[in-house]
Amino acid sequence: MEGGNRMAGIMEVVSLGPGDAALLTPQCREALAAAGRIVGYRRYLELVPPELLAGKALVSTGMTGEMERAGAALDAALAGERVAVVSSGDAGVYAMAGLVLELAAERGLLGELDIRVLPGVPALAAAAALLGAPLTHDFACVSLSDLLTPWETIERRLDAAAGADFVLVLYNPRSHKRDWQLPRALEIVARHRGPATPVGLVRNAFRPGQAVSVAGLGGLDPAQVDMLSILVVGNSATRLAAGRMITPRGYLDKYGAERRG
Amino acid sequence: MEGGNRMAGIMEVVSLGPGDAALLTPQCREALAAAGRIVGYRRYLELVPPELLAGKALVSTGMTGEMERAGAALDAALAGERVAVVSSGDAGVYAMAGLVLELAAERGLLGELDIRVLPGVPALAAAAALLGAPLTHDFACVSLSDLLTPWETIERRLDAAAGADFVLVLYNPRSHKRDWQLPRALEIVARHRGPATPVGLVRNAFRPGQAVSVAGLGGLDPAQVDMLSILVVGNSATRLAAGRMITPRGYLDKYGAERRG
Repeated sequence: MEGGNRMAGIMEVVSLGPGDAALLTPQCREALAAAGRIVGYRRYLELVPPELLAGKALVSTGMTGEMERAGAALDAALAGERVAVVSSGDAGVYAMAGLVLELAAERGLLGELDIRVLPGVPALAAAAALLGAPLTHDFACVSLSDLLTPWETIERRLDAAAGADFVLVLYNPRSHKRDWQLPRALEIVARHRGPATPVGLVRNAFRPGQAVSVAGLGGLDPAQVDMLSILVVGNSATRLAAGRMITPRGYLDKYGAERRG
Repeated sequence: MEGGNRMAGIMEVVSLGPGDAALLTPQCREALAAAGRIVGYRRYLELVPPELLAGKALVSTGMTGEMERAGAALDAALAGERVAVVSSGDAGVYAMAGLVLELAAERGLLGELDIRVLPGVPALAAAAALLGAPLTHDFACVSLSDLLTPWETIERRLDAAAGADFVLVLYNPRSHKRDWQLPRALEIVARHRGPATPVGLVRNAFRPGQAVSVAGLGGLDPAQVDMLSILVVGNSATRLAAGRMITPRGYLDKYGAERRG
């Protein structure tokens, strides 16, 4: 297939956002509308507004079908189709943009195919908005999935980020098969933070079944967390006010006295 | 003003995204359309589609007017108005959501006023999409602004995150008045990464004057960076392919041999 003349198509890696059409950007909506073929994990295809799926070739695969999805999408684009590969949240954050570009690079197609990554509302921003304002200062995102990353690397990152007082956003915190990683991660964070440190838990942000809660680091029940959840662990300054999680930026400390005086 | 009965209004903290209307979520567009008063830094108000500003009370302030903006917005909402406070990017990432909630908490208004944070496309996602796929693995966001944060804290975070092999996203990397912080930050990162580590520079993402480039850590010219820029420093695995910055997630390592065989 590689080499020679052909009608190369367009491949867009599309960010669906949390799943509510009100959070799908017009740019991504247009890309979905223009695509002849939409490729994605079957749960993600369920997040695409139905009117944008009608009449399209759909390629849906299971959770572990990432390679297959990306390869099928490249083949279709090479054959001249306009293809949308979809991810929930932002396609560049732990999502399909990387694999699509990697595979295209390996096949020598990056100069040949028009591959565009279209940004969206990432899960970290959706979760933060529902919790209040936990990400107004430096933060680190760590995925607790050790399917592709050695657990030792994940531990080292958790320890470093908690030790340097980053707010932590935990992706893929727990699944049926991965149940010991979250308690272990919370232990590592607890080396550096007190038990009252607010931890926000958001499940199904902006989707049916949305659930938002905040617990102390010492009181979080891991059993409430699943693969549809995002956790946000506050830094040493993060506090709760009327149920909202707030990480101060420092304005009130700097300007508060003057303003009050 | 505090206490007693009044007609409390609605306050929405609205994420404008990078600035292109194609990246403004329908939810945020509707909030702007419904608002009677729009409050924001004057450069951010310029990012609001003009048809959404028409006929509205507008409160624009300079860069250091954050406290003033948030206070004015709360006063208007207390008086019964529907108010939109705007931030570029995502309002929860280094932006107005925190200050609005902090100030509301300090004034005891969180239980009384309906304050909603509406997520959007953060600068980190916009920059990543233009660079390729640098954020497909764990990353840390650090602001190099030491106006409200001690420089020692910033150094500690840079060192910890680079040492644990996070991809780094640098917000507020440089301004006219803050010109020594970026070279110093790059020195700290260079303790842990080689000079060929890709560093992506995105200026004015999805806005007029957009500029995207990638240099090696050892060859980046800080003079090209300004306050409208975002920098993304790769981790030890990040590489360049046909000008795209890609951080592999590990799929090809794990499944590549089998697939090729």
